[in-house]
Amino acid sequence: MAAKPLNQSAALRVGLAGLGTVGGGVMSVLSRNAEEIGRRAGRPIQIVAVADLDSAKRKEAQSNGVAAFENALEMLEKAELDVLIELIGGYGFAKDLVLAAVGRGLNVVTANKALLAVHGNEIFAKAEAKGATVAFEAAVAGGIPIIKALREGLVANQILSVAGIINGTTNFILSEMREKGLSFAEVLAEAQRLGYAEADPTFDVEGVDAAHKITLLSAMAFGMSVRFEQAHIEGISRLDSQDIAYADRLGYRIKLLGITRRRPQGIELRVHPTLIPAKRLIANVEGAMNAVVVRGDAVGETLYYGKGAGAEPTASAVIADLVDLARSADVPASSRVPHLGFQPKHREELQVLPIDSIESGYYLRLRVSDESGVLADITKVLADSKISIDAFFQREADDGQKQTDVILLTHTCKESQILSALKTISSLKTVLAAPVMLRVESFE
Amino acid sequence: MAAKPLNQSAALRVGLAGLGTVGGGVMSVLSRNAEEIGRRAGRPIQIVAVADLDSAKRKEAQSNGVAAFENALEMLEKAELDVLIELIGGYGFAKDLVLAAVGRGLNVVTANKALLAVHGNEIFAKAEAKGATVAFEAAVAGGIPIIKALREGLVANQILSVAGIINGTTNFILSEMREKGLSFAEVLAEAQRLGYAEADPTFDVEGVDAAHKITLLSAMAFGMSVRFEQAHIEGISRLDSQDIAYADRLGYRIKLLGITRRRPQGIELRVHPTLIPAKRLIANVEGAMNAVVVRGDAVGETLYYGKGAGAEPTASAVIADLVDLARSADVPASSRVPHLGFQPKHREELQVLPIDSIESGYYLRLRVSDESGVLADITKVLADSKISIDAFFQREADDGQKQTDVILLTHTCKESQILSALKTISSLKTVLAAPVMLRVESFE
Repeated sequence: MAAKPLNQSAALRVGLAGLGTVGGGVMSVLSRNAEEIGRRAGRPIQIVAVADLDSAKRKEAQSNGVAAFENALEMLEKAELDVLIELIGGYGFAKDLVLAAVGRGLNVVTANKALLAVHGNEIFAKAEAKGATVAFEAAVAGGIPIIKALREGLVANQILSVAGIINGTTNFILSEMREKGLSFAEVLAEAQRLGYAEADPTFDVEGVDAAHKITLLSAMAFGMSVRFEQAHIEGISRLDSQDIAYADRLGYRIKLLGITRRRPQGIELRVHPTLIPAKRLIANVEGAMNAVVVRGDAVGETLYYGKGAGAEPTASAVIADLVDLARSADVPASSRVPHLGFQPKHREELQVLPIDSIESGYYLRLRVSDESGVLADITKVLADSKISIDAFFQREADDGQKQTDVILLTHTCKESQILSALKTISSLKTVLAAPVMLRVESFE
Repeated sequence: MAAKPLNQSAALRVGLAGLGTVGGGVMSVLSRNAEEIGRRAGRPIQIVAVADLDSAKRKEAQSNGVAAFENALEMLEKAELDVLIELIGGYGFAKDLVLAAVGRGLNVVTANKALLAVHGNEIFAKAEAKGATVAFEAAVAGGIPIIKALREGLVANQILSVAGIINGTTNFILSEMREKGLSFAEVLAEAQRLGYAEADPTFDVEGVDAAHKITLLSAMAFGMSVRFEQAHIEGISRLDSQDIAYADRLGYRIKLLGITRRRPQGIELRVHPTLIPAKRLIANVEGAMNAVVVRGDAVGETLYYGKGAGAEPTASAVIADLVDLARSADVPASSRVPHLGFQPKHREELQVLPIDSIESGYYLRLRVSDESGVLADITKVLADSKISIDAFFQREADDGQKQTDVILLTHTCKESQILSALKTISSLKTVLAAPVMLRVESFE
C-alpha cells in the first residue's frame, strides 16, 4: 500500500546560507529522502532560497527553481522563510547573519560550533528574547544525536561528566601513529594528502575545535552559560609516538578527549591527550570516528558513537533539527526544548576550575641516568607529595648509553600535587630531561 | 548564584501505577533530582497519586502526602492527572489501564515492551484518535535514549538496519559462558542466584523480550505497524559453549542480537545468537550492558550503549518522557513526535520476510568421521549450492576417537540456500550428527 501523498502547501520554507560540503550534503539528503522525511515530519521541507558567494553554485540552484542570493542578509530580507540554515562558518559574517535572523524571530539551524562556543551566550539570549530557536545538533559530533541525548534523553539525571572523542582529524592521526608507529608530523602530512586534515590544521590538532564542542556540551550538562574562554586546551602536536607505545605496554590508548566534570568546587572543562584503559569501549574508537561518554547519577554510563564529520553525517543532524522545527511549527518557543537544556531563567553560574585544581590520574615519563637509587629517589618525592603509584616500568638502558626511561602511572590526585612533585623530581641530579606528563581517564 | 525558585503551581501531575523496582526508582530519582529536573522542564513534576496492590507501599505513599489506590483504574477516576505512568507490566490489567487512560485523552508513559509489541497498534490508534501521547523510551534498552535517536535524531535517514544487544540477562550469561568456559545451565543458575535472571527466565533466555524490543525498533525504523507475531525468535538456551570457543578462535564473539533490516523485498525481523567480529565495538559489550547499532543512509553507522535495565536507568528514561510532556504540555498532540516516528497516516505496510528468505553469513559446526575426503565432500555441496566459504578449520581428532569437528564460516547467502545445503550435508555418511548453524553479522 503506498502512503498518502503529502500536502505540499504546508511546506517548511528553508533558506540555506553556504553551499559548501555540508550544504551540498543537506541538499542531496533532503532531495533523496524527501518522501521519507515528509512522512516523518508531517509536511515537506523545502529549500526555497540559497545564498553563496560562488556564482556557479547560485546558477545551479536557480536552474532548480530556487531563489539564489550572493548576500545571505539580502536573502533574509527578500525570501519568505520559516528557518535559516547557517553553514558559512567562522565568527564574522556568520555571527551577523545569525543575529539578524533571530532578531527577526526567525529560527536558525547551524553547524557552527566555533560561533556558538564563543558567542553563544549573546546569540541564545537574543533568540530567547525574540521567541526564536537556534538549533545546533550538527555542531557537536556530526551525525551522532548527542545534543538531543543530553538536553532531552538524559534530562532526569544530574550529569556527572561528559568525555568524548569529538575531533575526527586528531583521532585519525592518533590511530595511525599507534598502528604504524609513525610520528605526528609524518601522519599529519598523510592526513592532509588524504583530505582528512586541512591545509592549516591548527584548530583541529591544537584542540581548539574539540574545546568548542566540549564547551557546548558542558553548558548543556550543567545548566550554565557557554564558557569557552575558560577551557584548558592542549592539542596533540607535541605528542611523542614513544608515549603511545609506552601507554600500549601499560594497557592504555592515547586519545584526544574533551572532558567536563562536576566537582563540589566547580566544573572541569578541558581538552588534552589522555590515556584510557584499552578495554574501555571508547579506547577502541578508531580512525575519524567520534564517541561521547555521558555519565549520569541515575543512568550510569552511556556512550554514543558515529561519524563526527562529513557531508552526509552532518546533514543528517542539520535535517533532524529541521524536522524538529517542522513537527513543532505551531508551538510557542517557550514550549520548545531550551537552547542549553535548562530553562534560561534557571541557569546557574558554576565556577570553571583552573587546570591545577582538577583531579586526574597521571602518566609520567622520566629520562634518568641508569644508576642505582634513581627509582627510590623518584618514588620518595611522590610519596612525600602523597601521590600513590598505580603501575610503573623501567626500560632497559639503550646500548652504550647510561640513560633510560622510567614510566609511572599515578592514582588520582590534584594536578597541583603532581606539578609540585614534578618540580622537585626535575631538580634531581639523576633526572636528565624535562618530565613528560599526560593525564589518565579510567572511565570507572 | 542560586537559581530562581520554581513556580509550584504549574506542576505536572503524575499518577504512578505499580510501585515495584522501577516505580521505586522513578520516585527516588524524581525526588533526589527534583530541583535539576524542574530547572530543565520549566515546571515541577509531581507524583500526586499512586496505585499498587501492596497496602504497605500504599501506606508509605500516603504518609508522604500522596493519594494511594489499590486499583489503578480507580486512580484514573478520582485523581486529577496530566500523565499516567504504567509500570505494572504484562498484557492483562496493564492493557485495560492504558486503554482506559488514553480513552480519556490522558497521556501515558510506560516501560511495558511486551504490551506495546503485542497490542501497540490498538493502543497507538486509540491514543491518536483521542489526542493522547503514549511515551515509551523506557521500553527499549533502559536508560539509553534509543527511541529518541530513532524517531528524532536520525529522522533524515532511510534507516537501513538496526541491530542490538537489548537483553541484559542473556548478554550477562553469554559473557560468563565465554569468560569462564561454563555451560548455559551453569551460568543461568549463577545468574538466578545473583538476581540477574528471573526465577522463570523464559522470556529472557528464549529471546522473547529481545523480540518485543526489536519489534518496536523495527516499526520506528521503517514506518510500519508493530508486527511482533511475525518476528523470528531463537534464544540462547540451546547454545553450546563449544561454539562460543570455536567462534573465539575464528575472531568472533557470540551475542544474542535483535536484528531488523530493510531489503528490497521487505523487512527482516529476527532475534537469535549471532557471531560478530571481535574487533567491532558491539562485540565488546559485556555483562548486563546493552548496545544498539543503527545504520542510516546519510549518517552511516551509529551506536548507543548503556545500562538496559535496573531501577534507576529505567527511571531515567521514564522521567525523560515526563519532561518531554512537561515541556510541551500546551502543545497539541499533532505537533508532538508521532508514536512510531512516522505520521500515522503515512505509515506503510511493508512485508516482514519469512526467516528462510533473509540473507546472512553462517557459522557451521559439523561432527564428522576423521577420514580423508570428508572436507572435499562438504565443500563440494556448498560450492554446488553457490555458497562461498570465508574461513574454516578442523579440530584435531579427540584421542582414541575417529571423529572430529569441522567449523566453517560462509559469506552472505540466502538462508534457504544454506538450509538446503545442510540437508544434503546431513545425508553424507561421514557427517555423524545434526549440523549446528548460527548466523553471522559482520557490521560492515
